[in-house]
Amino acid sequence: MSLNHPLVGIIMGSDSDLPIMKEAAETLEEFGVSVEVRVISAHRTPDVALAWARGAKGRGIKVIIAGAGGAAHLPGVLAALTPLPVIGVPVKTSTLSGVDSLYSIVQMPPGVPVATVGINAAKNAALLALQILALGDQEIDAKVEAFRQKQADSVAQRDAKLQEVGWKNYAKS
Amino acid sequence: MSLNHPLVGIIMGSDSDLPIMKEAAETLEEFGVSVEVRVISAHRTPDVALAWARGAKGRGIKVIIAGAGGAAHLPGVLAALTPLPVIGVPVKTSTLSGVDSLYSIVQMPPGVPVATVGINAAKNAALLALQILALGDQEIDAKVEAFRQKQADSVAQRDAKLQEVGWKNYAKS
Amino acid sequence: MSLNHPLVGIIMGSDSDLPIMKEAAETLEEFGVSVEVRVISAHRTPDVALAWARGAKGRGIKVIIAGAGGAAHLPGVLAALTPLPVIGVPVKTSTLSGVDSLYSIVQMPPGVPVATVGINAAKNAALLALQILALGDQEIDAKVEAFRQKQADSVAQRDAKLQEVGWKNYAKS
Amino acid sequence: MSLNHPLVGIIMGSDSDLPIMKEAAETLEEFGVSVEVRVISAHRTPDVALAWARGAKGRGIKVIIAGAGGAAHLPGVLAALTPLPVIGVPVKTSTLSGVDSLYSIVQMPPGVPVATVGINAAKNAALLALQILALGDQEIDAKVEAFRQKQADSVAQRDAKLQEVGWKNYAKS
Amino acid sequence: MSLNHPLVGIIMGSDSDLPIMKEAAETLEEFGVSVEVRVISAHRTPDVALAWARGAKGRGIKVIIAGAGGAAHLPGVLAALTPLPVIGVPVKTSTLSGVDSLYSIVQMPPGVPVATVGINAAKNAALLALQILALGDQEIDAKVEAFRQKQADSVAQRDAKLQEVGWKNYAKS
Amino acid sequence: MSLNHPLVGIIMGSDSDLPIMKEAAETLEEFGVSVEVRVISAHRTPDVALAWARGAKGRGIKVIIAGAGGAAHLPGVLAALTPLPVIGVPVKTSTLSGVDSLYSIVQMPPGVPVATVGINAAKNAALLALQILALGDQEIDAKVEAFRQKQADSVAQRDAKLQEVGWKNYAKS
Amino acid sequence: MSLNHPLVGIIMGSDSDLPIMKEAAETLEEFGVSVEVRVISAHRTPDVALAWARGAKGRGIKVIIAGAGGAAHLPGVLAALTPLPVIGVPVKTSTLSGVDSLYSIVQMPPGVPVATVGINAAKNAALLALQILALGDQEIDAKVEAFRQKQADSVAQRDAKLQEVGWKNYAKS
Amino acid sequence: MSLNHPLVGIIMGSDSDLPIMKEAAETLEEFGVSVEVRVISAHRTPDVALAWARGAKGRGIKVIIAGAGGAAHLPGVLAALTPLPVIGVPVKTSTLSGVDSLYSIVQMPPGVPVATVGINAAKNAALLALQILALGDQEIDAKVEAFRQKQADSVAQRDAKLQEVGWKNYAKS
Repeated sequence: MSLNHPLVGIIMGSDSDLPIMKEAAETLEEFGVSVEVRVISAHRTPDVALAWARGAKGRGIKVIIAGAGGAAHLPGVLAALTPLPVIGVPVKTSTLSGVDSLYSIVQMPPGVPVATVGINAAKNAALLALQILALGDQEIDAKVEAFRQKQADSVAQRDAKLQEVGWKNYAKS
Repeated sequence: MSLNHPLVGIIMGSDSDLPIMKEAAETLEEFGVSVEVRVISAHRTPDVALAWARGAKGRGIKVIIAGAGGAAHLPGVLAALTPLPVIGVPVKTSTLSGVDSLYSIVQMPPGVPVATVGINAAKNAALLALQILALGDQEIDAKVEAFRQKQADSVAQRDAKLQEVGWKNYAKS
Repeated sequence: MSLNHPLVGIIMGSDSDLPIMKEAAETLEEFGVSVEVRVISAHRTPDVALAWARGAKGRGIKVIIAGAGGAAHLPGVLAALTPLPVIGVPVKTSTLSGVDSLYSIVQMPPGVPVATVGINAAKNAALLALQILALGDQEIDAKVEAFRQKQADSVAQRDAKLQEVGWKNYAKS
Repeated sequence: MSLNHPLVGIIMGSDSDLPIMKEAAETLEEFGVSVEVRVISAHRTPDVALAWARGAKGRGIKVIIAGAGGAAHLPGVLAALTPLPVIGVPVKTSTLSGVDSLYSIVQMPPGVPVATVGINAAKNAALLALQILALGDQEIDAKVEAFRQKQADSVAQRDAKLQEVGWKNYAKS
Repeated sequence: MSLNHPLVGIIMGSDSDLPIMKEAAETLEEFGVSVEVRVISAHRTPDVALAWARGAKGRGIKVIIAGAGGAAHLPGVLAALTPLPVIGVPVKTSTLSGVDSLYSIVQMPPGVPVATVGINAAKNAALLALQILALGDQEIDAKVEAFRQKQADSVAQRDAKLQEVGWKNYAKS
Repeated sequence: MSLNHPLVGIIMGSDSDLPIMKEAAETLEEFGVSVEVRVISAHRTPDVALAWARGAKGRGIKVIIAGAGGAAHLPGVLAALTPLPVIGVPVKTSTLSGVDSLYSIVQMPPGVPVATVGINAAKNAALLALQILALGDQEIDAKVEAFRQKQADSVAQRDAKLQEVGWKNYAKS
Repeated sequence: MSLNHPLVGIIMGSDSDLPIMKEAAETLEEFGVSVEVRVISAHRTPDVALAWARGAKGRGIKVIIAGAGGAAHLPGVLAALTPLPVIGVPVKTSTLSGVDSLYSIVQMPPGVPVATVGINAAKNAALLALQILALGDQEIDAKVEAFRQKQADSVAQRDAKLQEVGWKNYAKS
Repeated sequence: MSLNHPLVGIIMGSDSDLPIMKEAAETLEEFGVSVEVRVISAHRTPDVALAWARGAKGRGIKVIIAGAGGAAHLPGVLAALTPLPVIGVPVKTSTLSGVDSLYSIVQMPPGVPVATVGINAAKNAALLALQILALGDQEIDAKVEAFRQKQADSVAQRDAKLQEVGWKNYAKS
């Protein structure tokens, strides 16, 4: 499978969500997966949303990551328009801290699921997308396994350093 | 203004919301306002939603009442597709009691408001629609004023009866 | 319809709410709609509230926007006193982030609706007022349609720019 | 001080709150304090609310107990209209369990306090009113002290019985 | 009634609550009511709490204001130990914003009410105490009436100034 | 790809979750996808959880659906042990209605995502699994597309019937 | 260590909590640990609470389990009066489902911890008490280990049965 | 009992929790109790978690303190793997303030309790561990009693100073 054309669409309702959502793009690119990053609003540009989502599968997109805050309809609206798996990222809001975003994304009605990750958890959305892609791509699969090992090693190394220098010194560093 | 064609569209995402949403229809009809009641899902029939909302203004609809529960996108999706005022009714859910519905409807992003009423408050949605219609229709305006007077009288009558029979007897009745 | 006298009353319970509520005034004036901005407390100046609300319709006010925080009674108290549509803006609080304001405004009893918008969403309150006014005013109607198109264009332009410069450069800018 | 005319006004926004609010009336009458029980809606009969609250102090009312649910404005509206202490009873709601009522009553702005008791805690509202009245009435004071002793005895007797019969038998009884 | 000895006890569980609770003391002293301010912890100095509360009535204290945060037991513990009215001030917490404090104070069991005010609302606690004291003291009563008038005037003056200078200039000032 | 061996593991922490989780099994079997249904507790049988999750990928499992309530650790614990995508179903609890389950499942730390669906939304978990499997299986892909069409038709038929019989008759039926 | 005198005190504020709290007593007795079950209210019988808690350690009590609902002060009040470990059981309430109880118990101030278990989790409180007692008692330690094994076996047996009969038949049984 | 080898294990899922969790270590060392501080992630290093927890009792650990935030599984996962008492510290999160952590820790299923303390309450976790250890160690017992006395004295001294200098001066200091 060629990784040169985008396999993952990363959609956000407003460019103000980019500081959060770019973590998804960064993670996917670190794994060598091309992404298509778009600012498409379910509420302000519904026609673009419809056209993009309807065409995504045909253009080779495999997984969609959508982030939104408040009455966060974007992931659900996209999920209504395409059979591709849609991963929803509830973006933290200044008023309700993202509980509004979370409920608006996760509580989808029967028939139209959105795979919801934690509030602001764009990196985890990317990792979930990679785990899904890995099911059909041995190269990504190997990278996911390696990432998980490296992640375990990182925790173990911090633990080892803490044992070595003691928690008092570690806390100061 | 003729009241023979529908002035208010009452849309719900699922016919399971009809027991709640029919209160809106009943109230509007009591005021002599024709309604168009539709089951249209933002998630399961997005094309119908788009077509209906896009055509509503042209067909003479003035106000839209939309009810939905959970990740309740319907009012916001309609509000994205038409400049008509959209009144959202958060429907109570079995799991989160409608807090999810409320947040999903009221916390709309800048530019696309939804006039949200209380959880399950379909009757109030109808009254709000009537107050809006009354701005341009003297007959409805008079009916709204009369309704409010009647409502005040009803409370006053109950109070008077309570004074008459005493709270102990009233509580038993 | 002359726009020279106020069509919309913008009422707040405390002048500390002005930084939020002035967005409503700004938006309405941008649309050429005159506003009457008042500081009237449901709790500290109830007589003024009563007099103002009772007289609003007669003086040509069409829509009322009321903002308040905490035990936010102002929108509901005004709605009790006038048949005009009242739009409530729950103002964020330092303790409960505006959940208190939201519940105090949206959960009105049967018979007295308040059209509630999101927490701190004074701009959306103004847009909702404009959508209501547009039902009876072709000039405002045209401006609302134009605003919505401009808003869609703005999102599309940001999206286009993001495609052009790439998300990495966009995120830095 | 004569107890023959009402010292405590018990106000509720709807007669549907009477099953809760009558506990306040019962408790006060058990203590020999006359009550005035009224159904007055802050939203549906605002003029009655205003007239009643404005006249309460002059007519010898000392304490007001007001119960309401949802966007529960009644206690705060009364507190705005009289310098008498107002005790608010948040009534449980079918949708938000009374959290809405609680926030709408307790989070009053500076200058206009409401003495809030627990959700549905009409009996406690009565006891609080009695504790306030007791400050200026030795007879009530003695009854409050006696009630508290009796209450302690009741708990102690249940505890004694539990020790006597054992928790297994007590649980069955 | 002499105002020279304390009529109101202001108790806090930790001196870290003083920045909030001193507003109660300031307000009461502005009204010429002497206060007794104490740091007494229901959890860390329970014996002091017991002795103080048991002796309060005998020493002429009429009303108790108690502030606490988190698992805020102090108001309820004091209310268990004295028949005097206890006003509880839920202090905002860094983790749960005072919802924990509010629930811990307001949801008292039948028989032992606490008159709860809003989160951090120490000033309102003082005003409520004054309204209670006013029932038996004409001087305080007159001051409470004057305060409420002054408060209304202050809102009216701000409103007048806003009308005079316009909301745009007012917002800048 | 043979569908004869299980492609999806459906794991629940307690057999009391089966009435909810069996909807996932039913849906998957309706699509012709074999499932492996297991009762494995992250807390009571951690070794079984470890062994099962470690072996899942090797045995041909592609997607895991895990349901749990309360401190719902099962989905996250499985996600820690396998690179396969894990879909979490927060099961409603009698005390906190599943908010506890939802937060325990969705708020996973960076590096270990769980694809969370709505409270009790086991059917949606199955559909999400099918959308993921469809990326690598044309037969499932076709069935997913057909299901979505059928679902849209069902809503449209109900809407059509409602138009035909009118909302009053529909509500009675 | 003799198990004949009570090692664990089980205290509840009201006998209405016995249906929940008796699970703690049952569990402890199943493990052969004597319990002292008392109805003592922090609010209605504070002196009994003080005397009991102060004397507990001297009488050989090792661990205290206290259950309460609403403004649930009992566990914290006991923890203030004794250095023994206090386990708090938040009892579910009809209004706030036990969130009030949970916050009132778990959010204790620095210096006075309460070991909080889940809402209504009296059985877990007993198991926690047993795990604590097991640190100094080999017999209890052995029983705790055996209980945990038995518990694991029970889950495994249900899983085995489910594999044997299939999930469809299991769900029916 | 020798205090030279660790009696308490302090485990955190990420070294970012050390600023909170080191308060537990500091408190325990102040009491002369050795601690073993480890960074072990239930999700990223599950094998280390399993090995550590399984070996803890055999190595002489008596009590485990585990802190985690978000979907905070660490305390529960450890509690599943060892019969030692596990104290859970819910760490405050930037999005949900630690409500997520609290629910993920406290709402454990029957059979596997976690002794939960308040959000970020690592010091209280240590004190609870000391109260547990004190049951079998007279030296620790004496220190716990002394600590509690000192703590009471500290509050009393602050109270005395406040009486001496007056609340106005105290508030300024």
